[in-house]
Amino acid sequence: MTTFIFGHKSPDTDAIASAIAYAYLKKRLGEDIEAGRLGEINSETAYALDYFKKKKPQLIHDLQKDTPVILMDHNERQQSIDGLENFRIKEIIDHHKIANVETKEPIYFRTEPVGCTATIVYQLYKENGIEVPEQEAGMMLSAIISDTLLFQSPTTVEKDRKAAKELAAAAGVEIKTYGISLLKAGTDWSATKDDDLVRTDMKDFDMKGWKVRIAQVNTAGVASVLNRREALFAKMEEAVQREAVDLYVLMITDVLQADSILLAAGAGKAKAGEAFGKKLQDGAVELPGVISRKKQVVPALQQII
Amino acid sequence: MTTFIFGHKSPDTDAIASAIAYAYLKKRLGEDIEAGRLGEINSETAYALDYFKKKKPQLIHDLQKDTPVILMDHNERQQSIDGLENFRIKEIIDHHKIANVETKEPIYFRTEPVGCTATIVYQLYKENGIEVPEQEAGMMLSAIISDTLLFQSPTTVEKDRKAAKELAAAAGVEIKTYGISLLKAGTDWSATKDDDLVRTDMKDFDMKGWKVRIAQVNTAGVASVLNRREALFAKMEEAVQREAVDLYVLMITDVLQADSILLAAGAGKAKAGEAFGKKLQDGAVELPGVISRKKQVVPALQQII
Repeated sequence: MTTFIFGHKSPDTDAIASAIAYAYLKKRLGEDIEAGRLGEINSETAYALDYFKKKKPQLIHDLQKDTPVILMDHNERQQSIDGLENFRIKEIIDHHKIANVETKEPIYFRTEPVGCTATIVYQLYKENGIEVPEQEAGMMLSAIISDTLLFQSPTTVEKDRKAAKELAAAAGVEIKTYGISLLKAGTDWSATKDDDLVRTDMKDFDMKGWKVRIAQVNTAGVASVLNRREALFAKMEEAVQREAVDLYVLMITDVLQADSILLAAGAGKAKAGEAFGKKLQDGAVELPGVISRKKQVVPALQQII
Repeated sequence: MTTFIFGHKSPDTDAIASAIAYAYLKKRLGEDIEAGRLGEINSETAYALDYFKKKKPQLIHDLQKDTPVILMDHNERQQSIDGLENFRIKEIIDHHKIANVETKEPIYFRTEPVGCTATIVYQLYKENGIEVPEQEAGMMLSAIISDTLLFQSPTTVEKDRKAAKELAAAAGVEIKTYGISLLKAGTDWSATKDDDLVRTDMKDFDMKGWKVRIAQVNTAGVASVLNRREALFAKMEEAVQREAVDLYVLMITDVLQADSILLAAGAGKAKAGEAFGKKLQDGAVELPGVISRKKQVVPALQQII
């Protein structure tokens, strides 16, 4: 039975690139495996795929019961395929906090506190003595640049930098030049509908019974996104009602300044300010120096909720 | 702040040896770290420590709040230090199914479906380019022999065999000769009190709200253990009452024949037979070919409960 590898819902570049690169590695090791995805790719990922001439992985739906699956770049049930309990989790490769996974048997579970899952996948190439092809190297490099915002994010560790350097050499690109063009490709949201914008790289978390939703939009043009704030709030409030969300946070992250503004909706929205010792103003709060959902926003919300 | 590494409660040889060996590796990598244990060592582990001239790790109690800890050979909360939520989990290295771990931040989490945690620790020496000293090699070899019952257990994989071979060379012992003497040292229970015997390598599991307790006694002399069955049942029933256990299973495993007899107590004891399509007779069931709690007994019970 073919194993399917996929990243989280609302996939970002790491979710797609790590699935592609790990599928290649597994095939080289003789396994029957396919890369997939759980949603539409974003413009940044499209840029990377186009640059390195890779096809996007197939959209996954209607997997057969008991299909073996490998979860990339997530371990939280809510971020994974619907009906996860119907499939057989074979492996998990991730760099997020450990949430609510439970398995019936021992599996290969590997998380590390690094800036990007692709950094771990690259490590797995090394451990298995498999050379990284140019295209897969380019995709993994793109993932690292994307997740660390060109090494500006506080989640970045030395291993990410080292992996990026080696992958850039294998892919034949100059990190900074390619990186800025990649990040810019991901930051033009003018063609994206309000409804899609508030669901960008969206993840749901269970915090003490609260359904907390956090989406993140990276941009080089914060003002043009903020101009649409009333429409964005309206879409967030719609989702809060429709999907019983207790707190909906949209991080608008300035990739050049390395700052974020949070927009908050839902009955618990005040917590989005309190988590950082601030008060919401018109539903928003400015957070200088905050760019990481995982390392800065999620822990702060967990502390306060 | 010093980090403490420890295996599960009611430690077996793997829980002790992997903590010792990983502490050495971490020290070599420059970290401030101490190995510990959460309970008394058994006679098999004592034999290995004596043979390879290692001191037993310190008994851990009263750790300071927020002490960083590394969990070895377990990830299930109930098997870990009391008040785990008061400490900071830095890493988990294990080869069991994923239970109910939750962390606030990303950590280094590594489980693999191998026969022994020491096999993973040995891999980590390799990945970090650190040579294994003779004593640590001997301890890790002992753990692999113990967990796989000299490679007879169905949990054994090629990686365990390969690691054992290389570790035996580093430790300067012949696997089979040393292995049989190690297993025999662990199977003389005549000096062990009934109360301690029913708590040998004991682990608690949460199965759909049931508190399921499974202890395992490896022996080369099944008859001498079974002679004490009435006294053992009495101690198990006492624990069932005192500690609100729903199902208490004692696996008596014949290390030479590779079979087990289960003794069962508690309101749910019938399940111990049903899980294998059998009926309990006088509270016991014979299971030819069953020797692995993790791969055979736990999944069967989870299926039926």
